[in-house]
Amino acid sequence: MATLGLIEYEDASPEVRAVYDDIMATRKVDRVNNFWKAIAHDPVTLKRTWESIKQVMAPGALDALTKELIYVAVSVTNNCGYCIATHTAAAQKKGMTDAMYAELMAAVGMANETNNLATGYQVEVDDPFKKPRSR
Amino acid sequence: MATLGLIEYEDASPEVRAVYDDIMATRKVDRVNNFWKAIAHDPVTLKRTWESIKQVMAPGALDALTKELIYVAVSVTNNCGYCIATHTAAAQKKGMTDAMYAELMAAVGMANETNNLATGYQVEVDDPFKKPRSR
Amino acid sequence: MATLGLIEYEDASPEVRAVYDDIMATRKVDRVNNFWKAIAHDPVTLKRTWESIKQVMAPGALDALTKELIYVAVSVTNNCGYCIATHTAAAQKKGMTDAMYAELMAAVGMANETNNLATGYQVEVDDPFKKPRSR
Amino acid sequence: MATLGLIEYEDASPEVRAVYDDIMATRKVDRVNNFWKAIAHDPVTLKRTWESIKQVMAPGALDALTKELIYVAVSVTNNCGYCIATHTAAAQKKGMTDAMYAELMAAVGMANETNNLATGYQVEVDDPFKKPRSR
Amino acid sequence: MATLGLIEYEDASPEVRAVYDDIMATRKVDRVNNFWKAIAHDPVTLKRTWESIKQVMAPGALDALTKELIYVAVSVTNNCGYCIATHTAAAQKKGMTDAMYAELMAAVGMANETNNLATGYQVEVDDPFKKPRSR
Amino acid sequence: MATLGLIEYEDASPEVRAVYDDIMATRKVDRVNNFWKAIAHDPVTLKRTWESIKQVMAPGALDALTKELIYVAVSVTNNCGYCIATHTAAAQKKGMTDAMYAELMAAVGMANETNNLATGYQVEVDDPFKKPRSR
Repeated sequence: MATLGLIEYEDASPEVRAVYDDIMATRKVDRVNNFWKAIAHDPVTLKRTWESIKQVMAPGALDALTKELIYVAVSVTNNCGYCIATHTAAAQKKGMTDAMYAELMAAVGMANETNNLATGYQVEVDDPFKKPRSR
Repeated sequence: MATLGLIEYEDASPEVRAVYDDIMATRKVDRVNNFWKAIAHDPVTLKRTWESIKQVMAPGALDALTKELIYVAVSVTNNCGYCIATHTAAAQKKGMTDAMYAELMAAVGMANETNNLATGYQVEVDDPFKKPRSR
Repeated sequence: MATLGLIEYEDASPEVRAVYDDIMATRKVDRVNNFWKAIAHDPVTLKRTWESIKQVMAPGALDALTKELIYVAVSVTNNCGYCIATHTAAAQKKGMTDAMYAELMAAVGMANETNNLATGYQVEVDDPFKKPRSR
Repeated sequence: MATLGLIEYEDASPEVRAVYDDIMATRKVDRVNNFWKAIAHDPVTLKRTWESIKQVMAPGALDALTKELIYVAVSVTNNCGYCIATHTAAAQKKGMTDAMYAELMAAVGMANETNNLATGYQVEVDDPFKKPRSR
Repeated sequence: MATLGLIEYEDASPEVRAVYDDIMATRKVDRVNNFWKAIAHDPVTLKRTWESIKQVMAPGALDALTKELIYVAVSVTNNCGYCIATHTAAAQKKGMTDAMYAELMAAVGMANETNNLATGYQVEVDDPFKKPRSR
Repeated sequence: MATLGLIEYEDASPEVRAVYDDIMATRKVDRVNNFWKAIAHDPVTLKRTWESIKQVMAPGALDALTKELIYVAVSVTNNCGYCIATHTAAAQKKGMTDAMYAELMAAVGMANETNNLATGYQVEVDDPFKKPRSR
């Protein structure tokens, strides 16, 4: 169980319910993930986090699926089990095929490998990628 | 300087030169990044890593730019300065605009925040996202 | 089960029991956490780790609760499930209210987000925060 | 230099200047850190991040210094050089003495050590710290 | 269950079976770990990863056990539960005694502690360990 | 410069000098690394950390070089620049050849890759590697 437990809709205050309602309406779903029910003990963080997520994950210069793939990549690198499970499901819902998933995992794996090779070999940045110091 | 120094083209063995040549031909560039020159002290790792990168980063179910964005997302989460500098440049070369970059950073930032909230609040995976145990 | 299993008090050597006794006396509890029982297979590490923890976590310039909050912040960032569960409980025992817990999580989450934004945007340290090089 | 460079006050749009002004007024300083100038290329993220930071770091159930210590603890664990430099300075400004700093570092170090011992030894959570599964 | 489930030998394509056969023959075992069955949905990644592992983990300048200890050290630092469980077992099979295991854990723990102390105290590299910049 | 600066031998208190002397005698060197000079502002942490390192890194069931390789593996995974520079140098002094170094880096890189593949694919632990729950 989450540290402070989960706050279900029927037990929620009006301000928490308003966020739950907006989550369900925005995502066109009829339930709210445990993540939101867990942080609902702190309505200010609940509202701020949801508003931020809604803003950040909306399609813009990057489409919604690409953003979801990025979310999964970060979650895997951070080894966040909850986040991997839920955002993988979200990406699938947004159109991620098994082939896309496999390529995502392959890229995440290679990035983690070469990150460590670059760091371990203490490679310095190539001159063309350096920028002049800011004033 | 890299741990073992960098191996420049003119000092490289034929097998190392063959990899350098393939990197330049594949990427249509006339220089090889320090990363490759640093790991060239180990020609087996050089060849294996390049062949893997070439396979993983080639367009497939995901296009080349999306894969580069994923690479940047992982590199930022791992805090690999070298990788951030070079893969951000690579993504820009493949078409990443400043607007796309800004949205990438925003998504990486939010993913790192909510990863920690989910982990910290000890949220358990929602039933719909759980899968039956494998046999 | 822990890699090497747990060593219970009744099965412990005198030197291990001495550490267990000191843990229970110092913390005014009547049981020893699994962490200590797991590393007790290595009595030298058990004793060194306990003596270090006892020294580091004792109230000093920072009070005991603040130190526990710091421990939770690190454990969440490292995604250590065992450590989050036990140190959150320890912090609650030392007086952490739900409101304090919520603010702790919010700060940890934001710190992780802005850490990644600073790293991703490759921000250089402001001049006022730089220090002269040591001799 | 930051990926997209820094936006100085005199070059900023009115909406960016409004955030800069609020940062300086809230913190009672006459300059804005490079962090804000770097992300100002994305005014939406600039505003959202500042509003979030202002909310999260304001004194509440935890005082402002304790929150700053938590920020430093996370930044060290994430190895974010920029964040360590600026938040250590911020903590000092809010009253962190050298003795408090030393205890903070000691606690962060031990937490990282015992996190890895708990993870490495595969210690399972003690029954008293487990909670009943949520419905 | 793994994201895409596990592919058992009897359900595998000839190319996947060929990798499974090579794993079992190389390791002199009669079963294949879930890791390989999970990534077998992507036969290209399966083959590339196995060929890479076979090359990297073969005895060379470092013996096979030392390489396995390094694998465990990385897995603990990354907090990868699956990897810790399987590579600890693999190390034991290759001759890791309980005493060696205890010293491995102690070294991993101390390295994580001092990494954070060095990072937190913002220690600069000693002149003797600096190298001239590459040309 | 380190956060609180470095304490040189000639400026050190007798208790700090005693640790410096022991470091130089134990390691048979005539200088003390910046790491120790940086944490010497906190003599209690200086002494505790040195005593712990001395104990943990002494040859035992694992030889001194193997322990140093493990230290480098952890430092690379944590991306601790200072630690990578100094412990790579220490490993070389203890006998690490360029060939051993190359194999170390290759193993660290592959471990980081497969850690992420195992985590990303949400692979569950194989039955043979599971242990009965502790009582």
